[in-house]
Amino acid sequence: MDAKQTSTPDQALIVGASRGIGLAWVEHMLKLSPSVQVIAAARSVSTNEALAALEQAHPGQLTRIDMDITDEESVARAVASVKDQSLGMVVNTTGVLHDSSMGVFPEKRLEDLKWSSFESLMRINAFSNVMLLAQLLPKFKKDQPTYFAALSARVGSISDNRIGGWYSYRASKAALNQIIKTASIETKRRYPQLILAALHPGTTDTDLSKPFQANVPAEKLFTPQFVAERLMSVLMGLTPEDSGGFFAWDGQSIPY
Amino acid sequence: MDAKQTSTPDQALIVGASRGIGLAWVEHMLKLSPSVQVIAAARSVSTNEALAALEQAHPGQLTRIDMDITDEESVARAVASVKDQSLGMVVNTTGVLHDSSMGVFPEKRLEDLKWSSFESLMRINAFSNVMLLAQLLPKFKKDQPTYFAALSARVGSISDNRIGGWYSYRASKAALNQIIKTASIETKRRYPQLILAALHPGTTDTDLSKPFQANVPAEKLFTPQFVAERLMSVLMGLTPEDSGGFFAWDGQSIPY
Repeated sequence: MDAKQTSTPDQALIVGASRGIGLAWVEHMLKLSPSVQVIAAARSVSTNEALAALEQAHPGQLTRIDMDITDEESVARAVASVKDQSLGMVVNTTGVLHDSSMGVFPEKRLEDLKWSSFESLMRINAFSNVMLLAQLLPKFKKDQPTYFAALSARVGSISDNRIGGWYSYRASKAALNQIIKTASIETKRRYPQLILAALHPGTTDTDLSKPFQANVPAEKLFTPQFVAERLMSVLMGLTPEDSGGFFAWDGQSIPY
Repeated sequence: MDAKQTSTPDQALIVGASRGIGLAWVEHMLKLSPSVQVIAAARSVSTNEALAALEQAHPGQLTRIDMDITDEESVARAVASVKDQSLGMVVNTTGVLHDSSMGVFPEKRLEDLKWSSFESLMRINAFSNVMLLAQLLPKFKKDQPTYFAALSARVGSISDNRIGGWYSYRASKAALNQIIKTASIETKRRYPQLILAALHPGTTDTDLSKPFQANVPAEKLFTPQFVAERLMSVLMGLTPEDSGGFFAWDGQSIPY
């Protein structure tokens, strides 16, 4: 339908930019292009040292916005600071699998499930993307392909679920995949150049996977840098016909 | 792995039994067998006239338990009144698509979504089944195939999503399908005779579908009686190998 855009977008918003894949994505874009404008958002990016260093190394290219993805007003304030029809790419890397402060852990048995942690994961991993996308719609450029990606996970695949467990996390990622698919049907009509995707990063060496890395062979434990680069390449290889899909770091489509 | 059970279970628990498919399921089981014991649960079954009439017509066969599926303690009280290893079948027909008192309606656009209604549907349509199943595990018979079914919906299929909209409902049913699949992997080890299923009833003439019946051809708008009969037949045709699947009223497996 549209020609593929092969150059780095002029302006991008990376949410969850304070560490892991989000931080690596910011760095990757800044290195790719001396003209790209990157907005880095997360709860406390204003005090983040890694981002401060990137800002110094790439003067005038990086803007930092403190934003809590679970707080609608905080998201609205952050979004208000972005110009209409300016964004070429938005990536939300925020996601939780375990968080002792929230009492969230990956459940092994049905009896482990608690509404409070199920609810937390649904809000952060699935619903936050709705709020973000709904508010950002007017911010996307209209004259070229643009991208909105959320980090999903292969364990969110229902048909590919072979070992069970991790109930709330799996359910939140299945819900996210459904949201992205549903939104893609709506945005195909309203914003035909906008390409939505749910992306599976593979097991990446971040805080999220830390407790589960023991059984991961070294060659299957990716660096955040490798993953950010791969996922951005996969994302920019998509066309509007692919919008709403669920894709792995190697470009393969994952069954729901 | 196991021989199929073809006779009506001795004892069944039907949740959401006050109306629609739940009520029809209770009635169908009572008519099928003069020896079946049916426990009908819902928020106010003790004052339900249709169930009172069924109790009179089938003396000694029907027990009514008031139970709020969203309240863990209420579920625990109801479950405590059921004998261990007594149940052959549990069906949860509870589900919400729209409810003006909760501010829940099927969203057409991203901007319509609210966390409060997303959360309500996740709790009622998806999570309630976890709480129910976790608490009921010791109640299932161990010496024969037993069944736990939750009502899902074809619109919960991500791959079959062609017209979009209904975000929260679709996401909650995708989450439900993931929960049923995940639980089936766990119960295959712990309760090998227990068969779990997510069932799609088709469009049924109930309060849930009322606002959307205008565009449904008459032959595709089913009565609750037809649906209860079909779904019970589909459910009892399943084997432990089918556990965790997503099946329509006509027995077909639905892609996720």
